[in-house]
Amino acid sequence: MRHIQISLFTGLVLVLWGGWSWAAEQISPEIVSYSLDNIVLLLSAVLVLFMQAGFAALEAGMSPLNNTVNIMFKNFTDLCVGVLLFYFIGYSIMYGPDDLGGLGLMGWGGFGINSELSKPAGAGVLHPQVDWLFQVAFAATAATIVSGAVVGRMQLRAYIIYSALITAIVYPISGYWKWGGGWLDQLGFHDFAGSVVVHAVGGFAALAAAIVIGPRIGRFNHELEAPHLAGHSLAMASLGVFILWIGWYGFNPGSQLAFTGEANIAATMLIAANTTLAGAAGGIAAMLTSSLLAHTHKFSLSMLLNGVLAGLVGITASCDSVTNNQAIVIGLIAGVLVVFGSLLLQRLKIDDAVGAWPVHGLCGVWGGLATGIFGEHNLGSQALGSVVIPLWAFSIMFLSFWCLKQMGMLRVSKEEELEGLDIVEHGEIEGGL
Amino acid sequence: MRHIQISLFTGLVLVLWGGWSWAAEQISPEIVSYSLDNIVLLLSAVLVLFMQAGFAALEAGMSPLNNTVNIMFKNFTDLCVGVLLFYFIGYSIMYGPDDLGGLGLMGWGGFGINSELSKPAGAGVLHPQVDWLFQVAFAATAATIVSGAVVGRMQLRAYIIYSALITAIVYPISGYWKWGGGWLDQLGFHDFAGSVVVHAVGGFAALAAAIVIGPRIGRFNHELEAPHLAGHSLAMASLGVFILWIGWYGFNPGSQLAFTGEANIAATMLIAANTTLAGAAGGIAAMLTSSLLAHTHKFSLSMLLNGVLAGLVGITASCDSVTNNQAIVIGLIAGVLVVFGSLLLQRLKIDDAVGAWPVHGLCGVWGGLATGIFGEHNLGSQALGSVVIPLWAFSIMFLSFWCLKQMGMLRVSKEEELEGLDIVEHGEIEGGL
Amino acid sequence: MRHIQISLFTGLVLVLWGGWSWAAEQISPEIVSYSLDNIVLLLSAVLVLFMQAGFAALEAGMSPLNNTVNIMFKNFTDLCVGVLLFYFIGYSIMYGPDDLGGLGLMGWGGFGINSELSKPAGAGVLHPQVDWLFQVAFAATAATIVSGAVVGRMQLRAYIIYSALITAIVYPISGYWKWGGGWLDQLGFHDFAGSVVVHAVGGFAALAAAIVIGPRIGRFNHELEAPHLAGHSLAMASLGVFILWIGWYGFNPGSQLAFTGEANIAATMLIAANTTLAGAAGGIAAMLTSSLLAHTHKFSLSMLLNGVLAGLVGITASCDSVTNNQAIVIGLIAGVLVVFGSLLLQRLKIDDAVGAWPVHGLCGVWGGLATGIFGEHNLGSQALGSVVIPLWAFSIMFLSFWCLKQMGMLRVSKEEELEGLDIVEHGEIEGGL
Repeated sequence: MRHIQISLFTGLVLVLWGGWSWAAEQISPEIVSYSLDNIVLLLSAVLVLFMQAGFAALEAGMSPLNNTVNIMFKNFTDLCVGVLLFYFIGYSIMYGPDDLGGLGLMGWGGFGINSELSKPAGAGVLHPQVDWLFQVAFAATAATIVSGAVVGRMQLRAYIIYSALITAIVYPISGYWKWGGGWLDQLGFHDFAGSVVVHAVGGFAALAAAIVIGPRIGRFNHELEAPHLAGHSLAMASLGVFILWIGWYGFNPGSQLAFTGEANIAATMLIAANTTLAGAAGGIAAMLTSSLLAHTHKFSLSMLLNGVLAGLVGITASCDSVTNNQAIVIGLIAGVLVVFGSLLLQRLKIDDAVGAWPVHGLCGVWGGLATGIFGEHNLGSQALGSVVIPLWAFSIMFLSFWCLKQMGMLRVSKEEELEGLDIVEHGEIEGGL
Repeated sequence: MRHIQISLFTGLVLVLWGGWSWAAEQISPEIVSYSLDNIVLLLSAVLVLFMQAGFAALEAGMSPLNNTVNIMFKNFTDLCVGVLLFYFIGYSIMYGPDDLGGLGLMGWGGFGINSELSKPAGAGVLHPQVDWLFQVAFAATAATIVSGAVVGRMQLRAYIIYSALITAIVYPISGYWKWGGGWLDQLGFHDFAGSVVVHAVGGFAALAAAIVIGPRIGRFNHELEAPHLAGHSLAMASLGVFILWIGWYGFNPGSQLAFTGEANIAATMLIAANTTLAGAAGGIAAMLTSSLLAHTHKFSLSMLLNGVLAGLVGITASCDSVTNNQAIVIGLIAGVLVVFGSLLLQRLKIDDAVGAWPVHGLCGVWGGLATGIFGEHNLGSQALGSVVIPLWAFSIMFLSFWCLKQMGMLRVSKEEELEGLDIVEHGEIEGGL
Repeated sequence: MRHIQISLFTGLVLVLWGGWSWAAEQISPEIVSYSLDNIVLLLSAVLVLFMQAGFAALEAGMSPLNNTVNIMFKNFTDLCVGVLLFYFIGYSIMYGPDDLGGLGLMGWGGFGINSELSKPAGAGVLHPQVDWLFQVAFAATAATIVSGAVVGRMQLRAYIIYSALITAIVYPISGYWKWGGGWLDQLGFHDFAGSVVVHAVGGFAALAAAIVIGPRIGRFNHELEAPHLAGHSLAMASLGVFILWIGWYGFNPGSQLAFTGEANIAATMLIAANTTLAGAAGGIAAMLTSSLLAHTHKFSLSMLLNGVLAGLVGITASCDSVTNNQAIVIGLIAGVLVVFGSLLLQRLKIDDAVGAWPVHGLCGVWGGLATGIFGEHNLGSQALGSVVIPLWAFSIMFLSFWCLKQMGMLRVSKEEELEGLDIVEHGEIEGGL
């Protein structure tokens, strides 16, 4: 009986201990993990939103002084319009629970942030409000790429209509194809953080805009860029690229979406290191390539800046799937591509003032392909996605800009262009008196 | 006996398992939760401190070139003075454990960061050092709002005295009324992250300063703003607003103060999304309102910028208590208010160069009222707090600036004002040679 | 027997509960702690990398307009070159598992990020990829300090060679002495986040460069600074210092390396508060000291900015070891030192355009000594480390720059210098047309 008593006592002690344990574990590891995942996604969203400042500084610095206010205005309106329309419509198309028609073409979950998307809190689950915030930051990134390409000649109302279209409909639809679980996703297309889904969409929309609207007056009268169209502050542009680089640590590592556990941490940190290496390699490659190609052999800061961005765009699709050394190779190739892409546009007399297409369009597609070449993803699927999504963005935006042009709503008058949009559209000037 | 043996064996196994369990749980979920809460508050504090860069860029961009060095100098001195005085005095008044006199008017916990405030580490508990850092960032926000309003004419020593007063005494006292558990808190006044407690205090201090010091020479000789007083870089101002928007993700979500558990995560993420939506809505509303009111119907970037800030200020008090749609409405109304507030100041010939009062004062009060209208908090308490705190800040700062004026310490001479404070106070100029 | 049965039942229930418990704890507190530690280090690395933008803005703002593009170019190349070379070589020298020769002089772990450094995931363990990212951000900080000191006269190729040397070899070797577990570490030298290991290395490399290359043409013909050599934008420089201040919250608190548990949180938060207090104190002290020394008694923004940085550099070694009040004292002394250091360079006719040596060199050494004076670390060891590391950096870089000078690769021609490096090296100009 003594044994029985000991056993009973042991049992009771253990029951009590278990009960205490249970009470103390109302904060369970799962809930802390859930909290950490969501908080890190929030911080990542903040970093991605910070890229808006980077794009604004880059584009303003690379535009002539008399269009600086206009560029800044466009950068703010595309963000404000984008936030509201992606809230009301875009998010629901891109991540809605219903697949309209069942063809994997678009979703729908009602207006606003669908709270039915909520799942019980637990490790790896994301709160709908922060999920929306992270996604709207991506939509705003795609949207803001165009403004730099069309500097100095697009009417403000055309730009606002464009912003509405891309954030409410164009980006969400092709976004659904991949990240909403649509047909490209089902075919095995891999685009980890959006070389194609985000950057190529913005870059090819920019190309469409630049083609339809035509070059600025005087842009291709000279062999070199017309001096009065040159950017007014490479220092501001440089700060913009530093900010973009920083923001990319939200864009790429944040796209891991879950941040607890060995596998998630290993992935997140590989992604962060690869992003860094590719950006650095892109900058070096573009600097050397452009210097070799220039007859003066001078080193262009503009090209270095675009090379860094090219490397970052290029690694975005495959940052989770390649080794450090492969990331460097992907970045180097992106840095070479961006230089030749810029030359190509110049040859074709397409006026893309900030190099939006070479950086985001061309290197976005490169990123999609590189994921197949280096990242052990199916090269056919990668090629398909890397062609179809840019084609979608280019076609629909080409059509949209063409319609605006037919309605006389696309381009400002010659007089207005020569005066500069700051005075014309805003009555405010950069540089004070 | 066999059963007994099994039971005994079972008990022993479980005791061993329990012991192992206990050893492994020296890192308990509570401690990880405690760590996460404190780390997120640290990162939030960093984001709020980043707003100092935003305010500096906004104010410098919106001031004429010959006062840029002076504005930057003031933005650094108010931060440095504020950090030291909030450390020595302000924090202890605002969050001190003792309620001096028992009337809920101010606390006191001794000089420096009171380590007696320390509680045993555990979920939801904040370390005093990071609590201080988060709070000093808020105090610095309230303090820095004034510098833009008085650009071009306030003596440096007056500004330093003002900085000392507001961070050591004025802001901590009214802060105690709400956040230190004082009388307004006891009456049910709700101000989640400080529309009233922080922004309206800064905004009404700015109004007091602008009234007492009077307008700049030439400011109201013309229907429109005198061109030589116009801001010298809207690009810099725009970058400042982007930075402020980013910093607000520390300001509002960070004010949740605890970040583990389902309820905290749900609150934090709702706050972040609401902040985003209100800022975007404020920008759109101010853009449209100012365009409709302007006889040229041009779109003012300055107004768009202030509209974004108005939306952010407006949602700050209620970001935890309203739905996404309500956040948009609050932001829209703030965006309209900021335009009319600016016109009102112009009508009254009060020279508030950057719109500190319309943005932080008027929309701060709006934020306090909106919390009652939309956020299911008592409207009477909200109205009381939204009147009393601004009144306190306005009265005490009006009196202080008036005293400085009587002592000849407030305003620079006419000659100095026309020369610009950069040369006069610093012997340094913006723009190089 | 009833008791036995109860006991048996109890045992079974507990076994089941234990089993369930174990299953649910696949996400253990250890793994969440491991995840949090690594994520916070990633975010700290991002903040430290953001300092690159701060240095770029500070140096560009403090350089004349015709060298702005060049400064930005150098800031990007040192980052890109540094990232790649610290990846291939530097990291392995600094943190390699093998101590070459056993003398504590340098390590080696092979090219790239040594995955053998991986340890099983668990609380306090860092993933090699994020460890590398954090460390490369520090290497880039040391490297970028020099560019401002040699503004306007160093050939681009010389700067690129310098960048390669410091990030691949010089910084990693002395870094190994302390942070890789080398001889200085074994002698008890304490440098928490790198007052000496990072800042003094950069600062003394800058001094070597400034001495070997000599002053800019016209720099010491006048009592005061030649106006055409003055910085072109103190606003940009100010934004740079705000950004640096923000980045320091990655630099210092991030160096705690582990962020879970009471002790780690207490340390991290003390570090963050001390960093803030020392920066503020440094700014105030430099502002007052420079005003008292100036015959005009004007308040110099440049000196205030350098004072803030001086305080931040000064506290970096001891931020974990001193009280809040001691941090203020360390910051105040740093703020005084930076003013006298600048005067000393002027007296010696050494042209350090941005004050790289007074800020990072002199106050870096001060930080090392202050750790002995205030921080309860052995003053002898502190003095030894604070002399030997700067001496190493100065000697090796002096020799390197001297060799480059002998080969005619160090300084641009007189004509090129007078034209400005933007045109000469890049064919691009700041300020547009």
